[in-house]
Amino acid sequence: MASQTTNIPESLQKKGTPRAVILLSGGLDSYTSAAMAQAQGFTCYGLTVDYGQRHACELNAAYRVAKHLNIAEHKTVKLDLRAFGGSSLTDEISVPKNSDDLADSTQIPSTYVPARNTILLSLALGWAEVLGAFDLFIGANAVDYSGYPDCRAEFIGSFERLANLATKAAVEGKGQFKVHAPLLFMSKGQIIRSGHKLNLDYGITHSCYDPTKENLPCGQCDSCMLRLKGFDEAHLKDPLTYATTSMKE
Amino acid sequence: MASQTTNIPESLQKKGTPRAVILLSGGLDSYTSAAMAQAQGFTCYGLTVDYGQRHACELNAAYRVAKHLNIAEHKTVKLDLRAFGGSSLTDEISVPKNSDDLADSTQIPSTYVPARNTILLSLALGWAEVLGAFDLFIGANAVDYSGYPDCRAEFIGSFERLANLATKAAVEGKGQFKVHAPLLFMSKGQIIRSGHKLNLDYGITHSCYDPTKENLPCGQCDSCMLRLKGFDEAHLKDPLTYATTSMKE
Repeated sequence: MASQTTNIPESLQKKGTPRAVILLSGGLDSYTSAAMAQAQGFTCYGLTVDYGQRHACELNAAYRVAKHLNIAEHKTVKLDLRAFGGSSLTDEISVPKNSDDLADSTQIPSTYVPARNTILLSLALGWAEVLGAFDLFIGANAVDYSGYPDCRAEFIGSFERLANLATKAAVEGKGQFKVHAPLLFMSKGQIIRSGHKLNLDYGITHSCYDPTKENLPCGQCDSCMLRLKGFDEAHLKDPLTYATTSMKE
Repeated sequence: MASQTTNIPESLQKKGTPRAVILLSGGLDSYTSAAMAQAQGFTCYGLTVDYGQRHACELNAAYRVAKHLNIAEHKTVKLDLRAFGGSSLTDEISVPKNSDDLADSTQIPSTYVPARNTILLSLALGWAEVLGAFDLFIGANAVDYSGYPDCRAEFIGSFERLANLATKAAVEGKGQFKVHAPLLFMSKGQIIRSGHKLNLDYGITHSCYDPTKENLPCGQCDSCMLRLKGFDEAHLKDPLTYATTSMKE
Protein backbone atom coordinates (compact mmCIF):
# COMPACT_ATOMS: atom_id res chain seq x y z
CA MET A 1 0.00 0.00 0.00
CA ALA A 2 0.87 3.62 -0.40
CA SER A 3 2.84 5.79 1.95
CA GLN A 4 0.88 8.95 1.01
CA THR A 5 -2.52 8.14 2.47
CA THR A 6 -2.75 11.03 4.88
CA ASN A 7 -5.45 13.06 3.15
CA ILE A 8 -8.12 10.36 2.71
CA PRO A 9 -11.49 12.08 2.31
CA GLU A 10 -14.03 10.94 4.91
CA SER A 11 -16.39 9.65 2.19
CA LEU A 12 -13.72 7.25 0.96
CA GLN A 13 -12.67 6.11 4.42
CA LYS A 14 -16.24 4.90 5.05
CA LYS A 15 -16.11 2.67 1.98
CA GLY A 16 -12.71 1.20 2.83
CA THR A 17 -9.97 1.78 0.30
CA PRO A 18 -11.30 1.95 -3.24
CA ARG A 19 -9.04 0.83 -6.06
CA ALA A 20 -7.90 2.97 -8.94
CA VAL A 21 -6.05 2.13 -12.14
CA ILE A 22 -3.32 4.66 -12.89
CA LEU A 23 -1.71 4.99 -16.31
CA LEU A 24 2.03 5.15 -15.63
CA SER A 25 4.38 6.22 -18.41
CA GLY A 26 7.48 6.90 -16.36
CA GLY A 27 7.19 10.65 -16.96
CA LEU A 28 6.69 13.23 -14.24
CA ASP A 29 3.02 13.85 -15.06
CA SER A 30 1.84 10.28 -14.53
CA TYR A 31 4.05 9.96 -11.43
CA THR A 32 2.41 13.07 -9.96
CA SER A 33 -1.11 11.91 -10.85
CA ALA A 34 -0.43 8.51 -9.18
CA ALA A 35 0.79 10.24 -6.02
CA MET A 36 -2.33 12.44 -6.06
CA ALA A 37 -4.51 9.31 -6.32
CA GLN A 38 -2.73 7.84 -3.31
CA ALA A 39 -3.13 11.12 -1.41
CA GLN A 40 -6.88 10.85 -2.11
CA GLY A 41 -6.91 7.41 -0.48
CA PHE A 42 -7.01 5.14 -3.50
CA THR A 43 -5.20 1.81 -3.56
CA CYS A 44 -3.31 2.19 -6.81
CA TYR A 45 -2.84 -0.30 -9.65
CA GLY A 46 -0.32 0.97 -12.18
CA LEU A 47 -0.69 0.18 -15.87
CA THR A 48 2.17 0.79 -18.28
CA VAL A 49 1.63 0.17 -21.96
CA ASP A 50 4.74 -0.72 -23.92
CA TYR A 51 3.47 0.63 -27.23
CA GLY A 52 6.77 0.53 -29.09
CA GLN A 53 8.13 3.81 -27.75
CA ARG A 54 11.63 4.50 -28.99
CA HIS A 55 13.35 3.96 -25.68
CA ALA A 56 13.36 1.37 -22.96
CA CYS A 57 14.32 4.09 -20.45
CA GLU A 58 10.67 5.20 -20.43
CA LEU A 59 9.62 1.72 -19.27
CA ASN A 60 12.43 1.54 -16.71
CA ALA A 61 11.28 4.87 -15.29
CA ALA A 62 7.74 3.47 -14.95
CA TYR A 63 9.11 0.54 -12.89
CA ARG A 64 11.02 2.99 -10.66
CA VAL A 65 7.91 5.12 -10.16
CA ALA A 66 5.76 2.08 -9.28
CA LYS A 67 8.41 0.92 -6.80
CA HIS A 68 8.90 4.35 -5.27
CA LEU A 69 5.15 4.78 -4.70
CA ASN A 70 4.88 1.20 -3.43
CA ILE A 71 1.67 0.67 -5.39
CA ALA A 72 -0.46 -2.46 -4.95
CA GLU A 73 0.37 -3.91 -8.39
CA HIS A 74 2.11 -2.82 -11.57
CA LYS A 75 1.42 -4.39 -14.96
CA THR A 76 3.12 -3.72 -18.27
CA VAL A 77 1.11 -4.66 -21.33
CA LYS A 78 2.85 -4.92 -24.68
CA LEU A 79 1.03 -3.46 -27.66
CA ASP A 80 3.02 -2.59 -30.73
CA LEU A 81 1.56 0.64 -32.10
CA ARG A 82 4.49 0.79 -34.53
CA ALA A 83 2.34 -1.54 -36.63
CA PHE A 84 0.19 1.52 -37.46
CA GLY A 85 2.94 4.18 -37.72
CA GLY A 86 2.05 7.86 -38.04
CA SER A 87 4.01 9.30 -35.11
CA SER A 88 7.60 10.39 -34.50
CA LEU A 89 7.42 8.55 -31.16
CA THR A 90 6.75 5.16 -32.73
CA ASP A 91 7.79 5.65 -36.35
CA GLU A 92 10.82 6.68 -38.37
CA ILE A 93 9.83 10.36 -38.32
CA SER A 94 12.41 12.64 -36.66
CA VAL A 95 11.60 14.19 -33.27
CA PRO A 96 11.35 18.02 -33.46
CA LYS A 97 14.09 19.97 -31.62
CA ASN A 98 14.28 23.52 -30.27
CA SER A 99 10.72 24.34 -31.36
CA ASP A 100 10.08 28.08 -31.20
CA ASP A 101 6.40 28.18 -30.28
CA LEU A 102 6.49 25.53 -27.61
CA ALA A 103 3.72 26.59 -25.22
CA ASP A 104 1.70 28.73 -27.63
CA SER A 105 1.47 26.20 -30.40
CA THR A 106 -1.99 24.87 -31.14
CA GLN A 107 -0.67 22.79 -34.03
CA ILE A 108 -0.72 19.05 -33.49
CA PRO A 109 2.94 17.96 -33.35
CA SER A 110 4.49 14.89 -35.00
CA THR A 111 4.94 13.36 -31.53
CA TYR A 112 1.16 12.82 -31.38
CA VAL A 113 0.44 9.06 -31.37
CA PRO A 114 -2.87 8.35 -33.18
CA ALA A 115 -5.69 7.57 -30.72
CA ARG A 116 -3.10 7.04 -27.96
CA ASN A 117 -5.11 8.15 -24.94
CA THR A 118 -8.23 6.37 -26.23
CA ILE A 119 -6.23 3.14 -26.43
CA LEU A 120 -4.53 3.66 -23.04
CA LEU A 121 -7.80 4.47 -21.26
CA SER A 122 -9.59 1.52 -22.85
CA LEU A 123 -6.90 -0.83 -21.53
CA ALA A 124 -7.10 0.80 -18.09
CA LEU A 125 -10.88 0.31 -18.24
CA GLY A 126 -10.49 -3.40 -19.02
CA TRP A 127 -8.22 -3.96 -16.05
CA ALA A 128 -10.35 -1.77 -13.77
CA GLU A 129 -13.38 -3.89 -14.54
CA VAL A 130 -11.54 -7.06 -13.52
CA LEU A 131 -10.23 -5.38 -10.34
CA GLY A 132 -13.62 -3.97 -9.36
CA ALA A 133 -12.16 -0.46 -9.66
CA PHE A 134 -14.23 2.48 -10.93
CA ASP A 135 -11.55 5.15 -10.96
CA LEU A 136 -9.02 5.71 -13.73
CA PHE A 137 -6.20 8.26 -13.47
CA ILE A 138 -4.43 9.74 -16.46
CA GLY A 139 -1.75 12.45 -16.39
CA ALA A 140 -3.20 14.26 -19.43
CA ASN A 141 -2.55 17.98 -19.61
CA ALA A 142 -4.45 20.49 -21.71
CA VAL A 143 -2.13 23.44 -21.02
CA ASP A 144 1.17 22.30 -22.49
CA TYR A 145 -0.41 19.76 -24.84
CA SER A 146 -3.10 22.03 -26.23
CA GLY A 147 -2.42 20.62 -29.67
CA TYR A 148 -3.28 17.03 -28.69
CA PRO A 149 -7.01 16.35 -29.18
CA ASP A 150 -6.98 13.55 -26.58
CA CYS A 151 -5.60 15.82 -23.84
CA ARG A 152 -8.74 17.96 -23.63
CA ALA A 153 -11.53 18.02 -21.05
CA GLU A 154 -14.13 17.18 -23.75
CA PHE A 155 -12.23 14.01 -24.56
CA ILE A 156 -11.89 12.95 -20.91
CA GLY A 157 -15.61 13.55 -20.30
CA SER A 158 -16.55 11.65 -23.44
CA PHE A 159 -14.44 8.66 -22.43
CA GLU A 160 -16.07 8.65 -18.99
CA ARG A 161 -19.54 8.50 -20.59
CA LEU A 162 -18.36 5.69 -22.86
CA ALA A 163 -16.95 3.72 -19.90
CA ASN A 164 -20.32 3.83 -18.20
CA LEU A 165 -22.01 2.34 -21.27
CA ALA A 166 -19.26 -0.12 -22.21
CA THR A 167 -18.85 -2.22 -19.11
CA LYS A 168 -20.64 -5.01 -17.30
CA ALA A 169 -19.78 -3.42 -13.93
CA ALA A 170 -21.41 -0.08 -14.76
CA VAL A 171 -24.40 -1.59 -16.59
CA GLU A 172 -25.09 -3.90 -13.64
CA GLY A 173 -25.16 -0.80 -11.42
CA LYS A 174 -22.15 -1.76 -9.32
CA GLY A 175 -20.69 1.72 -9.68
CA GLN A 176 -20.01 4.65 -11.97
CA PHE A 177 -16.68 5.08 -13.68
CA LYS A 178 -14.80 8.30 -13.14
CA VAL A 179 -11.85 9.35 -15.29
CA HIS A 180 -9.55 11.57 -13.21
CA ALA A 181 -7.19 13.90 -15.01
CA PRO A 182 -5.96 15.92 -12.01
CA LEU A 183 -3.27 17.76 -14.00
CA LEU A 184 -5.54 18.77 -16.87
CA PHE A 185 -5.51 22.52 -16.22
CA MET A 186 -2.17 22.85 -14.41
CA SER A 187 0.98 24.37 -15.87
CA LYS A 188 4.14 22.25 -15.75
CA GLY A 189 5.40 24.54 -12.97
CA GLN A 190 2.25 23.91 -10.90
CA ILE A 191 2.52 20.15 -11.46
CA ILE A 192 6.15 20.14 -10.28
CA ARG A 193 5.29 22.24 -7.22
CA SER A 194 2.44 19.84 -6.33
CA GLY A 195 4.76 16.85 -6.68
CA HIS A 196 7.40 18.59 -4.58
CA LYS A 197 4.84 18.99 -1.77
CA LEU A 198 4.12 15.24 -2.03
CA ASN A 199 7.88 14.57 -1.63
CA LEU A 200 8.23 13.10 -5.11
CA ASP A 201 11.69 12.41 -6.50
CA TYR A 202 11.62 13.58 -10.09
CA GLY A 203 15.13 12.20 -10.53
CA ILE A 204 13.57 8.76 -11.15
CA THR A 205 11.38 9.94 -14.03
CA HIS A 206 12.08 10.11 -17.74
CA SER A 207 10.60 12.74 -20.06
CA CYS A 208 12.92 12.99 -23.08
CA TYR A 209 11.67 12.00 -26.54
CA ASP A 210 15.22 11.49 -27.84
CA PRO A 211 17.80 10.52 -25.17
CA THR A 212 21.48 9.89 -25.92
CA LYS A 213 23.03 6.42 -26.07
CA GLU A 214 23.97 6.88 -22.42
CA ASN A 215 20.28 7.53 -21.63
CA LEU A 216 20.85 11.20 -20.89
CA PRO A 217 17.89 13.45 -21.75
CA CYS A 218 18.67 15.60 -24.81
CA GLY A 219 17.45 18.90 -23.33
CA GLN A 220 16.26 20.03 -26.77
CA CYS A 221 13.11 18.10 -27.66
CA ASP A 222 9.68 19.56 -26.82
CA SER A 223 9.33 17.30 -23.80
CA CYS A 224 12.72 18.26 -22.28
CA MET A 225 12.09 21.95 -22.96
CA LEU A 226 8.66 21.83 -21.31
CA ARG A 227 10.13 20.05 -18.32
CA LEU A 228 13.00 22.52 -17.90
CA LYS A 229 10.62 25.45 -18.30
CA GLY A 230 8.40 23.88 -15.61
CA PHE A 231 11.23 23.53 -13.10
CA ASP A 232 12.20 27.12 -13.87
CA GLU A 233 8.62 28.31 -13.20
CA ALA A 234 8.49 26.25 -9.99
CA HIS A 235 11.81 27.77 -8.83
CA LEU A 236 13.15 24.26 -8.34
CA LYS A 237 16.17 22.45 -9.78
CA ASP A 238 15.55 19.49 -12.08
CA PRO A 239 17.52 16.60 -10.51
CA LEU A 240 18.26 15.12 -13.97
CA THR A 241 21.55 15.65 -15.77
CA TYR A 242 21.05 16.73 -19.38
CA ALA A 243 23.24 16.03 -22.39
CA THR A 244 22.85 19.66 -23.38
CA THR A 245 20.52 22.46 -22.38
CA SER A 246 19.20 24.93 -24.89
CA MET A 247 16.83 26.85 -22.64
CA LYS A 248 16.69 30.50 -23.48
CA GLU A 249 17.47 32.80 -20.54
CA MET B 1 -9.49 -4.51 -54.13
CA ALA B 2 -12.75 -6.22 -53.46
CA SER B 3 -14.85 -8.27 -55.78
CA GLN B 4 -18.15 -7.03 -54.24
CA THR B 5 -18.12 -3.39 -55.33
CA THR B 6 -21.27 -3.43 -57.39
CA ASN B 7 -23.50 -1.32 -55.12
CA ILE B 8 -21.29 1.73 -54.63
CA PRO B 9 -23.52 4.64 -53.57
CA GLU B 10 -23.20 7.65 -55.90
CA SER B 11 -22.00 9.89 -53.04
CA LEU B 12 -19.03 7.59 -52.44
CA GLN B 13 -18.19 7.20 -56.15
CA LYS B 14 -17.68 10.96 -56.43
CA LYS B 15 -15.08 10.94 -53.64
CA GLY B 16 -13.17 7.98 -55.09
CA THR B 17 -12.93 4.93 -52.89
CA PRO B 18 -12.95 5.80 -49.20
CA ARG B 19 -11.07 3.54 -46.84
CA ALA B 20 -12.60 1.69 -43.93
CA VAL B 21 -11.01 -0.26 -41.09
CA ILE B 22 -12.85 -3.52 -40.43
CA LEU B 23 -12.44 -5.50 -37.23
CA LEU B 24 -11.96 -9.11 -38.36
CA SER B 25 -12.20 -11.89 -35.81
CA GLY B 26 -12.51 -14.85 -38.15
CA GLY B 27 -16.13 -15.38 -37.13
CA LEU B 28 -19.09 -15.17 -39.49
CA ASP B 29 -20.29 -11.81 -38.17
CA SER B 30 -17.12 -9.86 -38.89
CA TYR B 31 -16.77 -11.63 -42.29
CA THR B 32 -20.29 -10.53 -43.20
CA SER B 33 -19.73 -6.95 -42.00
CA ALA B 34 -16.51 -6.75 -44.06
CA ALA B 35 -18.34 -7.97 -47.17
CA MET B 36 -21.07 -5.38 -46.52
CA ALA B 37 -18.42 -2.65 -46.29
CA GLN B 38 -17.02 -3.77 -49.65
CA ALA B 39 -20.51 -3.86 -51.14
CA GLN B 40 -20.89 -0.23 -50.02
CA GLY B 41 -17.76 0.67 -51.96
CA PHE B 42 -15.19 0.94 -49.20
CA THR B 43 -11.59 -0.15 -49.69
CA CYS B 44 -11.19 -2.39 -46.68
CA TYR B 45 -8.33 -2.63 -44.20
CA GLY B 46 -8.79 -5.60 -41.89
CA LEU B 47 -7.62 -5.46 -38.28
CA THR B 48 -7.35 -8.61 -36.21
CA VAL B 49 -6.41 -8.32 -32.56
CA ASP B 50 -4.68 -11.36 -31.10
CA TYR B 51 -5.84 -10.75 -27.54
CA GLY B 52 -4.84 -14.12 -26.14
CA GLN B 53 -7.94 -15.97 -27.30
CA ARG B 54 -7.82 -19.62 -26.46
CA HIS B 55 -7.36 -20.86 -29.97
CA ALA B 56 -5.15 -20.07 -32.91
CA CYS B 57 -7.93 -21.30 -35.24
CA GLU B 58 -9.73 -17.99 -34.70
CA LEU B 59 -6.69 -16.13 -36.06
CA ASN B 60 -6.29 -18.58 -38.95
CA ALA B 61 -9.92 -18.00 -39.87
CA ALA B 62 -9.29 -14.23 -39.90
CA TYR B 63 -6.44 -14.75 -42.41
CA ARG B 64 -8.71 -16.90 -44.61
CA VAL B 65 -11.46 -14.26 -44.48
CA ALA B 66 -9.03 -11.45 -45.38
CA LYS B 67 -7.69 -13.52 -48.27
CA HIS B 68 -11.12 -14.56 -49.51
CA LEU B 69 -12.34 -10.94 -49.57
CA ASN B 70 -9.06 -9.81 -51.14
CA ILE B 71 -8.94 -6.78 -48.86
CA ALA B 72 -6.36 -4.01 -49.34
CA GLU B 73 -4.36 -4.88 -46.21
CA HIS B 74 -4.68 -7.12 -43.18
CA LYS B 75 -2.87 -6.47 -39.90
CA THR B 76 -2.79 -8.61 -36.77
CA VAL B 77 -1.88 -6.75 -33.59
CA LYS B 78 -0.89 -8.75 -30.54
CA LEU B 79 -2.28 -7.56 -27.21
CA ASP B 80 -2.36 -10.00 -24.35
CA LEU B 81 -5.62 -9.38 -22.50
CA ARG B 82 -4.89 -12.52 -20.43
CA ALA B 83 -2.77 -10.15 -18.33
CA PHE B 84 -6.06 -8.78 -16.96
CA GLY B 85 -8.07 -12.03 -16.77
CA GLY B 86 -11.79 -11.96 -15.97
CA SER B 87 -13.18 -13.88 -18.96
CA SER B 88 -13.60 -17.52 -19.91
CA LEU B 89 -12.28 -16.62 -23.38
CA THR B 90 -8.91 -15.40 -22.08
CA ASP B 91 -8.73 -16.88 -18.60
CA GLU B 92 -8.92 -20.27 -16.88
CA ILE B 93 -12.70 -20.05 -16.42
CA SER B 94 -14.64 -22.87 -18.14
CA VAL B 95 -16.72 -22.07 -21.23
CA PRO B 96 -20.45 -22.63 -20.62
CA LYS B 97 -22.04 -25.51 -22.58
CA ASN B 98 -25.63 -26.31 -23.57
CA SER B 99 -26.99 -23.11 -22.00
CA ASP B 100 -30.78 -23.25 -21.74
CA ASP B 101 -31.69 -19.59 -22.14
CA LEU B 102 -29.44 -18.86 -25.07
CA ALA B 103 -31.31 -16.18 -26.97
CA ASP B 104 -33.46 -14.84 -24.14
CA SER B 105 -30.68 -14.40 -21.65
CA THR B 106 -29.99 -10.83 -20.58
CA GLN B 107 -27.36 -11.98 -18.11
CA ILE B 108 -23.79 -11.12 -18.98
CA PRO B 109 -22.03 -14.44 -19.72
CA SER B 110 -18.55 -15.50 -18.57
CA THR B 111 -17.41 -15.26 -22.20
CA TYR B 112 -17.64 -11.45 -21.92
CA VAL B 113 -14.13 -9.97 -22.22
CA PRO B 114 -13.84 -6.78 -20.10
CA ALA B 115 -13.94 -3.63 -22.25
CA ARG B 116 -13.26 -5.75 -25.35
CA ASN B 117 -15.11 -3.72 -27.98
CA THR B 118 -13.82 -0.44 -26.49
CA ILE B 119 -10.27 -1.74 -26.87
CA LEU B 120 -10.86 -3.16 -30.37
CA LEU B 121 -12.51 0.02 -31.65
CA SER B 122 -9.78 2.24 -30.14
CA LEU B 123 -7.14 0.22 -32.02
CA ALA B 124 -9.19 0.43 -35.22
CA LEU B 125 -9.43 4.20 -34.66
CA GLY B 126 -5.64 4.51 -34.30
CA TRP B 127 -5.03 2.72 -37.58
CA ALA B 128 -7.86 4.57 -39.33
CA GLU B 129 -6.28 7.88 -38.42
CA VAL B 130 -2.96 6.84 -39.97
CA LEU B 131 -4.74 5.54 -43.11
CA GLY B 132 -6.90 8.65 -43.50
CA ALA B 133 -9.99 6.47 -43.04
CA PHE B 134 -13.09 7.75 -41.24
CA ASP B 135 -15.16 4.58 -41.27
CA LEU B 136 -14.88 1.72 -38.80
CA PHE B 137 -16.85 -1.53 -39.16
CA ILE B 138 -17.58 -3.85 -36.27
CA GLY B 139 -19.70 -7.01 -36.40
CA ALA B 140 -21.37 -6.28 -33.04
CA ASN B 141 -24.84 -7.70 -32.57
CA ALA B 142 -27.39 -6.58 -29.98
CA VAL B 143 -29.88 -9.39 -30.66
CA ASP B 144 -27.94 -12.51 -29.74
CA TYR B 145 -25.49 -10.68 -27.49
CA SER B 146 -28.05 -8.66 -25.55
CA GLY B 147 -26.11 -9.38 -22.37
CA TYR B 148 -22.92 -7.71 -23.60
CA PRO B 149 -22.92 -3.99 -22.73
CA ASP B 150 -20.51 -3.18 -25.57
CA CYS B 151 -22.79 -4.73 -28.23
CA ARG B 152 -25.53 -2.10 -27.82
CA ALA B 153 -26.42 0.88 -30.03
CA GLU B 154 -25.78 3.31 -27.12
CA PHE B 155 -22.23 2.03 -26.87
CA ILE B 156 -21.59 2.30 -30.63
CA GLY B 157 -22.97 5.86 -30.70
CA SER B 158 -20.91 6.84 -27.69
CA PHE B 159 -17.71 5.51 -29.26
CA GLU B 160 -18.45 7.44 -32.44
CA ARG B 161 -18.78 10.68 -30.45
CA LEU B 162 -15.53 9.89 -28.64
CA ALA B 163 -13.71 9.23 -31.93
CA ASN B 164 -14.69 12.67 -33.20
CA LEU B 165 -13.19 14.31 -30.10
CA ALA B 166 -10.15 12.04 -29.75
CA THR B 167 -8.40 12.39 -33.06
CA LYS B 168 -6.26 14.87 -34.93
CA ALA B 169 -8.04 14.06 -38.18
CA ALA B 170 -11.52 14.89 -36.82
CA VAL B 171 -10.41 17.93 -34.80
CA GLU B 172 -8.65 19.37 -37.87
CA GLY B 173 -11.95 19.03 -39.74
CA LYS B 174 -10.71 16.50 -42.29
CA GLY B 175 -13.78 14.33 -41.76
CA GLN B 176 -16.21 12.83 -39.29
CA PHE B 177 -15.77 9.32 -37.95
CA LYS B 178 -18.59 6.87 -38.41
CA VAL B 179 -18.78 3.56 -36.54
CA HIS B 180 -20.75 1.08 -38.65
CA ALA B 181 -22.33 -1.89 -36.94
CA PRO B 182 -24.43 -3.19 -39.85
CA LEU B 183 -25.45 -6.39 -38.03
CA LEU B 184 -26.52 -4.68 -34.81
CA PHE B 185 -30.23 -5.42 -35.08
CA MET B 186 -30.14 -8.55 -37.25
CA SER B 187 -30.83 -12.09 -36.06
CA LYS B 188 -28.17 -14.71 -36.79
CA GLY B 189 -30.49 -16.13 -39.46
CA GLN B 190 -30.76 -12.72 -41.17
CA ILE B 191 -26.97 -12.26 -41.02
CA ILE B 192 -26.41 -15.65 -42.64
CA ARG B 193 -29.01 -14.95 -45.35
CA SER B 194 -27.30 -11.60 -46.10
CA GLY B 195 -23.92 -13.27 -46.36
CA HIS B 196 -25.35 -15.98 -48.58
CA LYS B 197 -26.60 -13.28 -51.00
CA LEU B 198 -23.05 -11.82 -51.02
CA ASN B 199 -21.71 -15.30 -51.95
CA LEU B 200 -19.78 -15.71 -48.72
CA ASP B 201 -18.27 -19.07 -47.86
CA TYR B 202 -18.99 -19.61 -44.17
CA GLY B 203 -16.91 -22.79 -44.31
CA ILE B 204 -13.78 -20.62 -43.86
CA THR B 205 -15.00 -19.03 -40.62
CA HIS B 206 -14.56 -20.11 -37.01
CA SER B 207 -17.14 -19.46 -34.28
CA CYS B 208 -16.54 -22.07 -31.55
CA TYR B 209 -15.40 -21.00 -28.09
CA ASP B 210 -14.04 -24.47 -27.30
CA PRO B 211 -12.93 -26.51 -30.33
CA THR B 212 -11.51 -30.05 -30.12
CA LYS B 213 -7.81 -30.82 -30.52
CA GLU B 214 -8.53 -31.50 -34.20
CA ASN B 215 -9.97 -27.94 -34.46
CA LEU B 216 -13.52 -29.19 -34.88
CA PRO B 217 -16.20 -26.88 -33.45
CA CYS B 218 -17.76 -28.39 -30.31
CA GLY B 219 -21.39 -27.74 -31.27
CA GLN B 220 -22.29 -27.15 -27.63
CA CYS B 221 -20.91 -23.77 -26.55
CA ASP B 222 -23.10 -20.65 -26.80
CA SER B 223 -21.35 -19.55 -29.98
CA CYS B 224 -21.82 -22.90 -31.79
CA MET B 225 -25.44 -23.11 -30.67
CA LEU B 226 -26.20 -19.58 -31.89
CA ARG B 227 -24.54 -20.34 -35.21
CA LEU B 228 -26.43 -23.60 -35.73
CA LYS B 229 -29.70 -21.93 -34.75
CA GLY B 230 -28.94 -19.17 -37.28
CA PHE B 231 -28.37 -21.60 -40.15
CA ASP B 232 -31.57 -23.36 -39.15
CA GLU B 233 -33.50 -20.05 -39.25
CA ALA B 234 -31.93 -19.18 -42.61
CA HIS B 235 -32.90 -22.61 -44.01
CA LEU B 236 -29.28 -23.13 -45.01
CA LYS B 237 -26.75 -25.83 -44.16
CA ASP B 238 -23.72 -24.86 -42.10
CA PRO B 239 -20.71 -26.01 -44.18
CA LEU B 240 -18.70 -26.78 -41.00
CA THR B 241 -18.34 -30.29 -39.58
CA TYR B 242 -19.08 -30.38 -35.85
CA ALA B 243 -17.60 -32.69 -33.21
CA THR B 244 -21.09 -33.16 -31.82
CA THR B 245 -24.39 -31.39 -32.24
CA SER B 246 -26.76 -30.88 -29.35
CA MET B 247 -29.35 -28.71 -31.11
CA LYS B 248 -32.85 -29.38 -29.88
CA GLU B 249 -35.28 -30.27 -32.64
